[in-house]
Amino acid sequence: MDLAILDQVLAQLRGVLEHDDLKEAIAAIEALRPPDQAYLVAELNDEDQVAVLSQLDPADSADVLEEMEDEDAAAVAELLPPADLADILDEMEVDEAADVLGDLSPEAAEKALREMEVREEVLPLLQYEDDTAGGLMTPAVVTLRRDWIAARALRELRRREPDADSAYYMYVTDGEGLLQGVVGLRDVVVAQPETVVEALMDPAVVSVPVTADQEVCARTLSRYGFLALPVVDLDGRLAGVITADDLIEVVEDEATEDMYRMVGISGEARVFGPLGPSVLRRLPWLAVNMVTLFVAITVVDAFEKVIAGMVALATFLPLVSGEAGNAGSQTTTVIVRGLALGEVDMHNGLRALLRELAAALINGALVGAGTGLAIYLWKGEMVIALAAALAMVLNFLVAALAGVLVPLGLMAIKVDPALASAAFVTGVTDTLGFLFFLGIATLLMAPGAW
Amino acid sequence: MDLAILDQVLAQLRGVLEHDDLKEAIAAIEALRPPDQAYLVAELNDEDQVAVLSQLDPADSADVLEEMEDEDAAAVAELLPPADLADILDEMEVDEAADVLGDLSPEAAEKALREMEVREEVLPLLQYEDDTAGGLMTPAVVTLRRDWIAARALRELRRREPDADSAYYMYVTDGEGLLQGVVGLRDVVVAQPETVVEALMDPAVVSVPVTADQEVCARTLSRYGFLALPVVDLDGRLAGVITADDLIEVVEDEATEDMYRMVGISGEARVFGPLGPSVLRRLPWLAVNMVTLFVAITVVDAFEKVIAGMVALATFLPLVSGEAGNAGSQTTTVIVRGLALGEVDMHNGLRALLRELAAALINGALVGAGTGLAIYLWKGEMVIALAAALAMVLNFLVAALAGVLVPLGLMAIKVDPALASAAFVTGVTDTLGFLFFLGIATLLMAPGAW
Repeated sequence: MDLAILDQVLAQLRGVLEHDDLKEAIAAIEALRPPDQAYLVAELNDEDQVAVLSQLDPADSADVLEEMEDEDAAAVAELLPPADLADILDEMEVDEAADVLGDLSPEAAEKALREMEVREEVLPLLQYEDDTAGGLMTPAVVTLRRDWIAARALRELRRREPDADSAYYMYVTDGEGLLQGVVGLRDVVVAQPETVVEALMDPAVVSVPVTADQEVCARTLSRYGFLALPVVDLDGRLAGVITADDLIEVVEDEATEDMYRMVGISGEARVFGPLGPSVLRRLPWLAVNMVTLFVAITVVDAFEKVIAGMVALATFLPLVSGEAGNAGSQTTTVIVRGLALGEVDMHNGLRALLRELAAALINGALVGAGTGLAIYLWKGEMVIALAAALAMVLNFLVAALAGVLVPLGLMAIKVDPALASAAFVTGVTDTLGFLFFLGIATLLMAPGAW
Repeated sequence: MDLAILDQVLAQLRGVLEHDDLKEAIAAIEALRPPDQAYLVAELNDEDQVAVLSQLDPADSADVLEEMEDEDAAAVAELLPPADLADILDEMEVDEAADVLGDLSPEAAEKALREMEVREEVLPLLQYEDDTAGGLMTPAVVTLRRDWIAARALRELRRREPDADSAYYMYVTDGEGLLQGVVGLRDVVVAQPETVVEALMDPAVVSVPVTADQEVCARTLSRYGFLALPVVDLDGRLAGVITADDLIEVVEDEATEDMYRMVGISGEARVFGPLGPSVLRRLPWLAVNMVTLFVAITVVDAFEKVIAGMVALATFLPLVSGEAGNAGSQTTTVIVRGLALGEVDMHNGLRALLRELAAALINGALVGAGTGLAIYLWKGEMVIALAAALAMVLNFLVAALAGVLVPLGLMAIKVDPALASAAFVTGVTDTLGFLFFLGIATLLMAPGAW
């Protein structure tokens, strides 16, 4: 449904809830599809959320919680009566229920677990982090044996009636549960009933371990063009399956997180989240940048006498640092994204560095020449024009060096390269930009320099 | 396969090809999985690519072309003999074959089409843009009628034997081809053979039109948790289906494109693409930024006499513009990403603006106060400290205003908001930062100002 229409429905819903007409509110919500329900419920205040979720059919509430952002879902789940919460969690997909439980306070999680029917299925999932294959997988998989015939495979499918989405691939395991192959449901259906599973299956099945990072899962699935990805435990036994739709969300969230981190916004900031956290999430980077800026201007301060002798230098200070800062952002973005997509790693980092240095030399020379010419035409000051042009080329090289080495260095010490790369690189290009420009200008003006 | 190992294989392969031992090269490539084959072949030079692709089994070559980036695939396809190319295209997924044909020169496309067997299936797809639902869909869909029984549905599936991935949902159409419902293959298999399709199908099927943007497709599929999405033509007739795995790539590519555009890199830049284009793709933004920087420094130039009277002002010039530039990048990123994910639109833009202004006021006041205090403690110059603090608050508000309005404005005139937002916003915060700081300082120093 269109966002504009949904917002109108939301306004009506808030009006109804203000008059405590819960029944009418429930009826209005029940008429919508789960994603639209989730959008509306997530926008309500805590009190209304609890009222609505405990009144809705548990299956509907389950859909709503599944559609909500993880932290929103956990926040409202924490406020629900444990019995109501248990009913709702029982109706959720097992991996999503585990995510909610994992985000609850230990007491709230324990209380809800005690009342849940699918406790036994959820418990093993609680040991995995949300952003790993183990945290994303659904354990409900139909497994076959290689010596079964197609008819028996279909009987097994009917008997198990697993979750619809995870049943389009069926996995073949041995007596130990070790993953041996994969067979598409369509192939089983289309095959003659007495065909042996072994003849239908692809033995070169691609799987990920429970500990695999969610980005690796997304990349693997998209690279091989699958709709589902089997997950194996550390002994190679089939533990569950991840479906492609869940990974689309992963890819979107990871990209958003990287984009935000590049400009120093931490956490899951959203446009219309609460104001307080959204302010706080931006402050640390602004503070870090304040420090790097103060470091940079100590360089300018050191040249105060030079500037006093030629005030026009002040006018051109922002040029060299600004342009190299942009070039540095370009390099940083290419490298950070390349690391995230698995195109760059420690092993080809040197190749990336040489390429970026080459690009920096060309672009720096072009931009530096243009800048120098523009300054000379405007002010007729050869010293400033030359200093700016030379400083530009040097600072472009510095930008490329920092833009490659900072993300790789952060990666090496296991810090997310997206997190602080841009701040560091700008700090370096600001500081050295001022130093190159003012230093070269000083040398050119000094009588002994020629 | 690990990138490091693949690069070793690549080195060996290049060695073998240098000695013109095509047979050994083909054997080495055939031992790999298609995505790994694609990685290797994409790294070879044109001549070797053509040699390898015409020697490989057409089905293997088809897999390789499917895995390659669109522009790389088209470049090598252009060089292949038309008959070989037609054989390969016949083996590719129809939507991917259409993508390759669409990227070829008209003559090469026509020659290849003339020799193709699946010409009739590909032709209708050529009318759609690659990045729309029509360009992404596979036309091979199994359609059912609502009055059929489950057993007949399975018979139809056996008879049609469609592409495996698109067969997990079966779509119900009427005599006109109008989409009426969807039924999962699992439900048909599990149902009693005489159950009517109508009883199994979900009539509230969510579809996208052939003209839908690929980002809308990805968002719809992930929001509703589907593995495939039916595509209808402008009359509502079922035209094809998009599977989730294709959309993961879409989401990844769109995010990369947005990240690159935010820092002014156009096109599908990759870390290890050819150097020339990669330099050229960065230059336009560097040139745009050069212009905005020159505009900004004309402000500094206008205050040359003021700076000559108090040279310490020059030292603090980069502070106000730099910090507000960072705050502006944060706002711009949140808004651009919000627009891409459909969380922000024209209709809630005002709400976003008010929120960003509120955040800017708080962060600007905090950072401004800190900056002023630091300057006073360092230099003891009350005028500079006050001017910097006040200018910081004002410039944070400007950054928020520009950070919201520039992307929304670009959206309104149908320009990708990611494209030039950051450049414009930085230009504005640089220029006004200098103006606020130097202007306020001048007022504070002027004898008549008090």
